[in-house]
Amino acid sequence: MKPNVAAAKAALSHLDIEKSPSAIRAKSRDFFWYSPVLKARLDHVEADFVVAPRDEAEVIEVLATCYAHDVPVTTRGAGTGNYGQAMPLAGGCVMHLQNMNRVRDVQPGRVICEPGILLKDLDAHCRAHSGQEIRMFSSTWATATIGGFVAGGSGGVGSCTWGSLRDLGNIIRLRVVTMEETPRVLEFRGEELARVSHAYGTNGIITEIEMPLAPAYDWVELFVAFDDFAPAMDYAEGLGNEDGILLKLATVFEAPIAHDYFQRVRPHVAEGQSLVALMVAPQSMDGLLTFTARTPGARIVYRSDASDWEKAPGRIFEYTWNHTTLRALKVDPSITYLQVRYGFPDHKALVERIRAQFSPEVLQHLEVLRENGKAMFAGLSLVKFTTEDRLDEIVRAHEDAGAMIFNPHRYTLEEGGRQSVDDRQLAFKREADPKGLLNPGKMIAWDDPDWSYERMYAYPGLRAAE
Amino acid sequence: MKPNVAAAKAALSHLDIEKSPSAIRAKSRDFFWYSPVLKARLDHVEADFVVAPRDEAEVIEVLATCYAHDVPVTTRGAGTGNYGQAMPLAGGCVMHLQNMNRVRDVQPGRVICEPGILLKDLDAHCRAHSGQEIRMFSSTWATATIGGFVAGGSGGVGSCTWGSLRDLGNIIRLRVVTMEETPRVLEFRGEELARVSHAYGTNGIITEIEMPLAPAYDWVELFVAFDDFAPAMDYAEGLGNEDGILLKLATVFEAPIAHDYFQRVRPHVAEGQSLVALMVAPQSMDGLLTFTARTPGARIVYRSDASDWEKAPGRIFEYTWNHTTLRALKVDPSITYLQVRYGFPDHKALVERIRAQFSPEVLQHLEVLRENGKAMFAGLSLVKFTTEDRLDEIVRAHEDAGAMIFNPHRYTLEEGGRQSVDDRQLAFKREADPKGLLNPGKMIAWDDPDWSYERMYAYPGLRAAE
Ligand SMILES: Cc1cc2nc3c(=O)[nH]c(=O)nc-3n(C[C@H](O)[C@H](O)[C@H](O)COP(=O)(O)OP(=O)(O)OC[C@H]3O[C@@H](n4cnc5c(N)ncnc54)[C@H](O)[C@@H]3O)c2cc1C
Ligand SMILES: Cc1cc2nc3c(=O)[nH]c(=O)nc-3n(C[C@H](O)[C@H](O)[C@H](O)COP(=O)(O)OP(=O)(O)OC[C@H]3O[C@@H](n4cnc5c(N)ncnc54)[C@H](O)[C@@H]3O)c2cc1C
Repeated sequence: MKPNVAAAKAALSHLDIEKSPSAIRAKSRDFFWYSPVLKARLDHVEADFVVAPRDEAEVIEVLATCYAHDVPVTTRGAGTGNYGQAMPLAGGCVMHLQNMNRVRDVQPGRVICEPGILLKDLDAHCRAHSGQEIRMFSSTWATATIGGFVAGGSGGVGSCTWGSLRDLGNIIRLRVVTMEETPRVLEFRGEELARVSHAYGTNGIITEIEMPLAPAYDWVELFVAFDDFAPAMDYAEGLGNEDGILLKLATVFEAPIAHDYFQRVRPHVAEGQSLVALMVAPQSMDGLLTFTARTPGARIVYRSDASDWEKAPGRIFEYTWNHTTLRALKVDPSITYLQVRYGFPDHKALVERIRAQFSPEVLQHLEVLRENGKAMFAGLSLVKFTTEDRLDEIVRAHEDAGAMIFNPHRYTLEEGGRQSVDDRQLAFKREADPKGLLNPGKMIAWDDPDWSYERMYAYPGLRAAE
Repeated sequence: MKPNVAAAKAALSHLDIEKSPSAIRAKSRDFFWYSPVLKARLDHVEADFVVAPRDEAEVIEVLATCYAHDVPVTTRGAGTGNYGQAMPLAGGCVMHLQNMNRVRDVQPGRVICEPGILLKDLDAHCRAHSGQEIRMFSSTWATATIGGFVAGGSGGVGSCTWGSLRDLGNIIRLRVVTMEETPRVLEFRGEELARVSHAYGTNGIITEIEMPLAPAYDWVELFVAFDDFAPAMDYAEGLGNEDGILLKLATVFEAPIAHDYFQRVRPHVAEGQSLVALMVAPQSMDGLLTFTARTPGARIVYRSDASDWEKAPGRIFEYTWNHTTLRALKVDPSITYLQVRYGFPDHKALVERIRAQFSPEVLQHLEVLRENGKAMFAGLSLVKFTTEDRLDEIVRAHEDAGAMIFNPHRYTLEEGGRQSVDDRQLAFKREADPKGLLNPGKMIAWDDPDWSYERMYAYPGLRAAE
């Protein structure tokens, strides 16, 4: 089963094949380097060739050809993932979906599109055609694709209202091509969606997506400053519980994140101030202002609809979710991060416990998220990185305290998730990718069903650095 | 301060004055007769005259004239309230707002209209002009006005998502005319809204309303049957907690409500079956079906988008909220009801406790409602009425168990609410209605600040039956 890369590449040479070596290298990488752990392991990873199918028929051709020649295929949306999800650990083919960016249909409450469209272009299309937008998006809205979001993301801006991508109703339908001698085209809905959503393209390639839509309002973006962290957290959570105030975003930044890492915000907040970022529907602004006036110490420092800042901060969501990490990294390259679930009803107590133990080595960055109908927090904590051992120690302390960690310093589905295989994904991989050629090395259960998770998994097929 | 009704009526004779005595009687009544307690006390109540202003200027004229002649004014939307709210206890003038039914402006997320428009006409307008509808409506959508809903209602269809009318953001702005020598016109937003919303028109007349809007989907209406009550309750609550499934309604009916009182549903459910009524956005139907398939024993007996019923049930929301009581009353005139708050997180245990104690004398009818961000239940329990004493006993047993009662057998704001005055409403009444002429007898704190709530309040100014 040795891959015959040259034969596959030759057979696909009539397609849109990337010629430039530097582009091949760039298209083999994602934002894995946010993690010093992944950076140490994946920096050399590179595909043998990159092909960009123009439609589903060409996807089928790529998959069938690579199947015939035993060549691994790693699918790429825009490569903005953080865990090396889109990186071809065993080399072979990167299938880049940039050409598959058509919108097929927009209806009240739903859109059908190809996977390679950028989130921002999808939103622009839906807004122009129907005054609608997608319910939620990763903060990489401007650069990421909807297919990558569905296959590699979890939620984001909008999740304070709609929950996560995996929640029932947040994806309607996926059309999927398998990697077999003769690839099959399948349509998944309902319970079947879990087979391939957030499966990193390890068991099928999504060629069409039907997503629910919500109204596209001219969201008002705000920063609200607080002298202390706890009232900032209470305020954001309280807003998340106001059923009549329509939010798209509610984020908490522990001091001094805003002051130290948000350049344009810095003149407007003191070092000791914690900050809340919000996106609020215009019709909910009166409610928001009333709620804010009820909150002692809340000070609105920025309103996008009435700003006097000399330098506008840009879109506020680009301070939130994993953009917070990005901004911190730019100022202090020793910063990395953790992904934490602070579950209802202990979320606030848990945050305070972790804070007492680790601040300022770990600074709290919280996203209000709905889970099972309750507002709670997704933490994307900023961590001052020293050593891998210390990072592991911090992870363990979170877990001991009862905060679940989705470790962003791992490249496998299991380690970045709940440390166990998703049986539906594994079962579907057996059916849809019998040779195990799709994005190899990302599903431990496929490679090593008895893996114990005691240490970081190291994919044996990881191609060595040259 | 003896009212000079004749002088006021004469001074207003150029306006739209009701001439027919039977119409005057009809327009002096509401749905108070759902309560045997109120029926025994208010059946004779009648206005001296009914006037229907055409615009705000005429409202001002009515109020100034009645003020000058010390004539009480009770405002009427459509008179579908259940507590005698719109009934002129002391006689005088009923000011009927049927002529003030214009929509002034529809924008993304909001509408501005006059108070006398029917909810259904408001929705039809918003849908036709913008694909939108109001967030929530009383189940009297077809017959009630938006002004009456804001001044006398609490919530309804839509509250499983958006919470109650009183929640921040569910009313944007109210324009209010005071009852003074020279009436003032005021604009209320934010914190000020609580002065006049749900104040029964006791302290100001609403002449313009700005409400938030949501998208108008072609809601799919469903009935889902269960052999037992508890799984039906779990299912409805579970759906209320599915953040990605957009609901407008989730109602639970304990057996045998559906079988005994819902004529068209009866052929499709057994006597022992509990029923759930739903309104689900079309784009959420896959999610709904998936959730339902996960629920052992859930059987969809009706889907409005794929019905094989010989006789269609009509709009499903007209089985819910207080329409449940109406349907039961039609079959069994001895039925009355209670309004219960089953608060999170004990809501399900509380329901089961009350059920164990009182079923079938009290049958559970639950509406999933969001309160402070949590799905819980508003109960509009059906009660087999025997005596007032027994009804009071049942009320006390609920309160002792920890379930708050909003007593629908009382005509005052306080007794129908939390048994205490709303200070903001009282303070504003002092300002806006110095003579106490607006809807007299409905605010105990105005008449008798030291009232102890030990027994039912009896307004001393209630005009005696002739
Ligand atoms: C600054 C920053 C902020 C971020 N914020 C968020 C956030 O808020 N929420 C969030 O969820 N993520 C976030 N991420 C991660 C990432 O940006 C998002 O998940 C993004 O939506 C991924 O889209 P992409 O097109 O870049 O996908 P890629 O990185 O190209 O792919 C992601 C995964 O999906 C697979 N894949 C892509 N397309 C397909 C397809 N058609 N069929 C099958 N598999 C496919 C890839 O193989 C890969 O495993 C952030 C990353 C950065 C760098
Ligand atoms: C079968 C049935 C089902 C119902 N379901 C619900 C439900 O789901 N939710 C709910 O909340 N209620 C419900 N109700 C009660 C009632 O129908 C609603 O509250 C309805 O919205 C009232 O509207 P209306 O126009 O009939 O108001 P009215 O009964 O005319 O008035 C209600 C109160 O508001 C005052 N008022 C009216 N207009 C103004 C104004 N412009 N300015 C100041 N005061 C004013 C009146 O004086 C009165 O005190 C139900 C009633 C019935 C009979």
